[in-house]
Amino acid sequence: MLNVGVIGCGGMGRDHIQRITERIQGAQVTAVSDVFEEGAKKAAGIAGGAKIYTDGKALIHDPDVDAVLIVSPGFAHVDDLLEAIKAGKRVFCEKPLCTTADDCRKVMDAEVQSGKHLIQLGFMRRYHKGYNQIKDAIATGEYGEPLIMHCTHRNPEVGTNYNTPMAVHDTVIHEIDLCHWLVDDDYDSVQVIMPKVTKYSHSELKDPQIMLMRTKSGICIDVECFVNCKFGYDINCEVVCEDGALKMGTPMAPSVRKNAQCSTEITTDCFVLFKDAYDAEIQNWVDCAAAGVIEGPSTWDGYLAAVTADALVKAQESGEIEKVVTVEKPEFYK
Amino acid sequence: MLNVGVIGCGGMGRDHIQRITERIQGAQVTAVSDVFEEGAKKAAGIAGGAKIYTDGKALIHDPDVDAVLIVSPGFAHVDDLLEAIKAGKRVFCEKPLCTTADDCRKVMDAEVQSGKHLIQLGFMRRYHKGYNQIKDAIATGEYGEPLIMHCTHRNPEVGTNYNTPMAVHDTVIHEIDLCHWLVDDDYDSVQVIMPKVTKYSHSELKDPQIMLMRTKSGICIDVECFVNCKFGYDINCEVVCEDGALKMGTPMAPSVRKNAQCSTEITTDCFVLFKDAYDAEIQNWVDCAAAGVIEGPSTWDGYLAAVTADALVKAQESGEIEKVVTVEKPEFYK
Amino acid sequence: MLNVGVIGCGGMGRDHIQRITERIQGAQVTAVSDVFEEGAKKAAGIAGGAKIYTDGKALIHDPDVDAVLIVSPGFAHVDDLLEAIKAGKRVFCEKPLCTTADDCRKVMDAEVQSGKHLIQLGFMRRYHKGYNQIKDAIATGEYGEPLIMHCTHRNPEVGTNYNTPMAVHDTVIHEIDLCHWLVDDDYDSVQVIMPKVTKYSHSELKDPQIMLMRTKSGICIDVECFVNCKFGYDINCEVVCEDGALKMGTPMAPSVRKNAQCSTEITTDCFVLFKDAYDAEIQNWVDCAAAGVIEGPSTWDGYLAAVTADALVKAQESGEIEKVVTVEKPEFYK
Amino acid sequence: MLNVGVIGCGGMGRDHIQRITERIQGAQVTAVSDVFEEGAKKAAGIAGGAKIYTDGKALIHDPDVDAVLIVSPGFAHVDDLLEAIKAGKRVFCEKPLCTTADDCRKVMDAEVQSGKHLIQLGFMRRYHKGYNQIKDAIATGEYGEPLIMHCTHRNPEVGTNYNTPMAVHDTVIHEIDLCHWLVDDDYDSVQVIMPKVTKYSHSELKDPQIMLMRTKSGICIDVECFVNCKFGYDINCEVVCEDGALKMGTPMAPSVRKNAQCSTEITTDCFVLFKDAYDAEIQNWVDCAAAGVIEGPSTWDGYLAAVTADALVKAQESGEIEKVVTVEKPEFYK
Repeated sequence: MLNVGVIGCGGMGRDHIQRITERIQGAQVTAVSDVFEEGAKKAAGIAGGAKIYTDGKALIHDPDVDAVLIVSPGFAHVDDLLEAIKAGKRVFCEKPLCTTADDCRKVMDAEVQSGKHLIQLGFMRRYHKGYNQIKDAIATGEYGEPLIMHCTHRNPEVGTNYNTPMAVHDTVIHEIDLCHWLVDDDYDSVQVIMPKVTKYSHSELKDPQIMLMRTKSGICIDVECFVNCKFGYDINCEVVCEDGALKMGTPMAPSVRKNAQCSTEITTDCFVLFKDAYDAEIQNWVDCAAAGVIEGPSTWDGYLAAVTADALVKAQESGEIEKVVTVEKPEFYK
Repeated sequence: MLNVGVIGCGGMGRDHIQRITERIQGAQVTAVSDVFEEGAKKAAGIAGGAKIYTDGKALIHDPDVDAVLIVSPGFAHVDDLLEAIKAGKRVFCEKPLCTTADDCRKVMDAEVQSGKHLIQLGFMRRYHKGYNQIKDAIATGEYGEPLIMHCTHRNPEVGTNYNTPMAVHDTVIHEIDLCHWLVDDDYDSVQVIMPKVTKYSHSELKDPQIMLMRTKSGICIDVECFVNCKFGYDINCEVVCEDGALKMGTPMAPSVRKNAQCSTEITTDCFVLFKDAYDAEIQNWVDCAAAGVIEGPSTWDGYLAAVTADALVKAQESGEIEKVVTVEKPEFYK
Repeated sequence: MLNVGVIGCGGMGRDHIQRITERIQGAQVTAVSDVFEEGAKKAAGIAGGAKIYTDGKALIHDPDVDAVLIVSPGFAHVDDLLEAIKAGKRVFCEKPLCTTADDCRKVMDAEVQSGKHLIQLGFMRRYHKGYNQIKDAIATGEYGEPLIMHCTHRNPEVGTNYNTPMAVHDTVIHEIDLCHWLVDDDYDSVQVIMPKVTKYSHSELKDPQIMLMRTKSGICIDVECFVNCKFGYDINCEVVCEDGALKMGTPMAPSVRKNAQCSTEITTDCFVLFKDAYDAEIQNWVDCAAAGVIEGPSTWDGYLAAVTADALVKAQESGEIEKVVTVEKPEFYK
Repeated sequence: MLNVGVIGCGGMGRDHIQRITERIQGAQVTAVSDVFEEGAKKAAGIAGGAKIYTDGKALIHDPDVDAVLIVSPGFAHVDDLLEAIKAGKRVFCEKPLCTTADDCRKVMDAEVQSGKHLIQLGFMRRYHKGYNQIKDAIATGEYGEPLIMHCTHRNPEVGTNYNTPMAVHDTVIHEIDLCHWLVDDDYDSVQVIMPKVTKYSHSELKDPQIMLMRTKSGICIDVECFVNCKFGYDINCEVVCEDGALKMGTPMAPSVRKNAQCSTEITTDCFVLFKDAYDAEIQNWVDCAAAGVIEGPSTWDGYLAAVTADALVKAQESGEIEKVVTVEKPEFYK
């Protein structure tokens, strides 16, 4: 039984606590931490009782904590990550790894020096059945080399505080991770194209956007990011290969004949779409933690996402093709 | 140029006149006939001028008429068909061939005795692209022997004068012809199943119905006939074979994402669905008439449809499996 | 933590033991029983250790067993079921409930007399996402009353020992349970239609078959059962209602463009198709057992399935419409 | 009856002659011209007899020619177009209008000065059912303003003489015309992205390419051009609007269950895909010519396509965003 300590008891933190308590095999929540003690107490209740901390570092060093789940706000990640590495404890960290590429690099360097793979990043889409079917199909070799990927990331709508750079940091950040993972390649350069803005947007948000990413081997990716598309949470991915093209399937749903239409539902809730992925992600982390390994997104993936996101935000402003400049990938992550 | 005389100048007759005048190559309407002279005059106008008759027989014998298109009410077909055979003129006859199996047989006997294939029956669905794709696929042999066919014939709604036997005579009559044509087989027996009646029906109409037909070689066909299905004119056909199953395609239509749905339109108008089939049917008849042959549904098909329909109406009443008893198929039609 | 004893340690039994041990929350296997002690020992190993019995009754009465999972051969079910009812212990029983309708009735009577809902039957398809989406859609009332259901149950192939009655007992038994559950109705009568036999069958097996079932309220169900369809494990279900038609979705799978085709995979393995359903079924039973209730298929459902199956086998022979004659449904199961 | 003279009797010319002779209402081929007299003679035979010319200009001035169909090589178009304008005769000109933007402009100026709309350009895809369904849907206003268009233009393979600029001139030239027509807008700028090259290409051809086009109002279009995709002739178009997204339908085709797949055919022959469009295009031109109007692609469209193609070829080389610089659109074409 893996004893998990959870840092950050907001909505997402409580979701993870409930998940571990109700649906995950081989793990239990033994400690929770939040700067707001009331939040921590509430979260401990969901776990059916757990130690309560207001300081993440203290939780990390608790001997009743085998592994740490970090769900605090992004700016707070770096200190807890470094502390967990120091303590040699396995970590599941919700995205982003850190809010700056520099901090990501610090964490990466510390993990490399520790000599142990300790950190898994919360890019849950890698556990979605649809993407895995695509990755498996590519891996068969039957379709040859991937050349192009077309993606859409469409949300029904966003709040008025959502602005242009958040299209990168909060939305396309998923495709940044997924696309390089699907084809096992890193990024070379990016560009952003700004079409006519939908009437449903506001002055601080250019919506939709088309983000272009090129990998080092020359695979070209286009992502339509449209966060006020109104009609649903609509995620698509097509990989065009030398010997065939693969389009991700859609979730099982009845086809309905009514009102002169044959239709299938598009969900409007991303948590419905990725519910199973969240469960599989945490179960995999728990299983791997028990075995002393990390299979999911690594610290390198978190660093690469941060650098790529910075380049995309720069490209939103410049309208130019921007280079993605990283340190060389450490042997440790290959 | 084939000179066509049209008997019957109602809506369907006028449609055919317009079709021949505007869209068919190699034919023109030179004479029209209707018991209501005003109707005939109006129809002649659509043709851009044509001789006007109130007596079909006179039209048949007009030397300016090479071929005859019969679109009069069903009860009037038998006399004109026999007259046209006597005159040795080619005929396109809208369904039904005749209103009784006995009359169909009379016409069939006359045609056989004439020694010439003169009559094509208006089962236009044989010219629909979708059914032809299925027939072609079966013909490749790649899927082995057909064993089962599942069909639906759904209408959005029917008038209050539409009653239970009309489900056979006006609706499933199409599948009676199509299904035996698709697999090149005749019928052995039929049965009708009466499910719970939809709230949109009335006391004289059992709706929906499931009609079961067995061919001589043992292929079993089920046709869901649902004429108040409300949602659209929805025609489907699946042929289950030994080495694969073939489902008829749907007409080209955009897929639309809107209101949390991905949908495609289902037409509510059978004339929209079969518009191209009507054109192809008449063009084929014109081309064949010029060449002195008949490729489309024959007098035998009209006779078989009449006998099978009678058996189905009997089965609607009896709830039993009813035999389809025909004369032996003349060599002439093999 | 629910302590589960498993009776029957064949392939399916071991699957369930592995499932409970690895994927189910809140349960553990504490005892196993098999007439072959070696099988029981092997199964205990999968559970990571468990008491070993060669007598199901002894296992049932073990105080370390809270609930019993019966996966023995069908003929052995009746005694263990009666014993478990006597012991007042909750049971999950793989289908069939018993091999005869009489035995089913004995078990049903005993459960009714015990006054407690103790038995859940292993019709796992009720836990399949696709069927639940259909059931939920019907329940919205948006589509009006169900009138007709079209189902297919296609297997790629079966062994040479699979014969005509097994099409009922081993295959369509699933639709017998599902269809009445989907529309919350019991059966009135059944019929079987025997089409031309596929070349891939043998003298003891008429394949395919079309099974017709009518519910008490008049809903008509047709099930195409084709166990040598060669192309895949292909399960379909369409419910035609007064205000719309609902077709069950297909599992998420990539659409692949290759070799002049756009295709999606059809699985050939029913355990792949229903893997999640098996897990959900056992988890639900465990959760309910803890709460002292049964939500899944009941003893009544097992009895109804047995009587309906008997009528279908009779109908396979007679070619007639056969009545489904049951005792009146006890208040206890309403 | 419109008397048509055809200039250019190669394969495409003979196709058009056969089309007019066999399938088009209200037109006949009365004269043909080719620099190779043998070719002209052969073509005249297809028309069932026609005057034979080796000089296009002489044909244009033949009083038995009401309208001219130009199917000669592109470089020869400009002279015949200017001559036809001089003669005041209606023209159908296969694409390209002329091989240089300057020549296109000369023709455009001459047509404007003539005061009559005389020239229709052979962009047959505007007559394809699928694109028209999309255009009609946009025109309903139900989906709001178009913002983005995603297109694919995939060919199974091309000959070894097909090189990088031909991806613009021979392939994406269709999308250049279609996309601006679909949204009734002209182009502002273009860009070309060059992904990793498929193993099926050669040194003179970068394949695939992604062509980006921005309209004056800011609609952004991406076209995947992949001419050695191997799997089929695969044309797709999705228009993302403010209130919904519209994806072009696929041609009617059976869905086939076989070999663990459910598949539909993708044609490998563009002439199969656009057969009906070619017929509709010429029929429309004939109908319009009789009425003295032009409804199809105009001289302006030909000029705009030439200028946009030049910008795309420049962008293939530069890797930069290139402006599309045209003269102002004459009132005459609005």
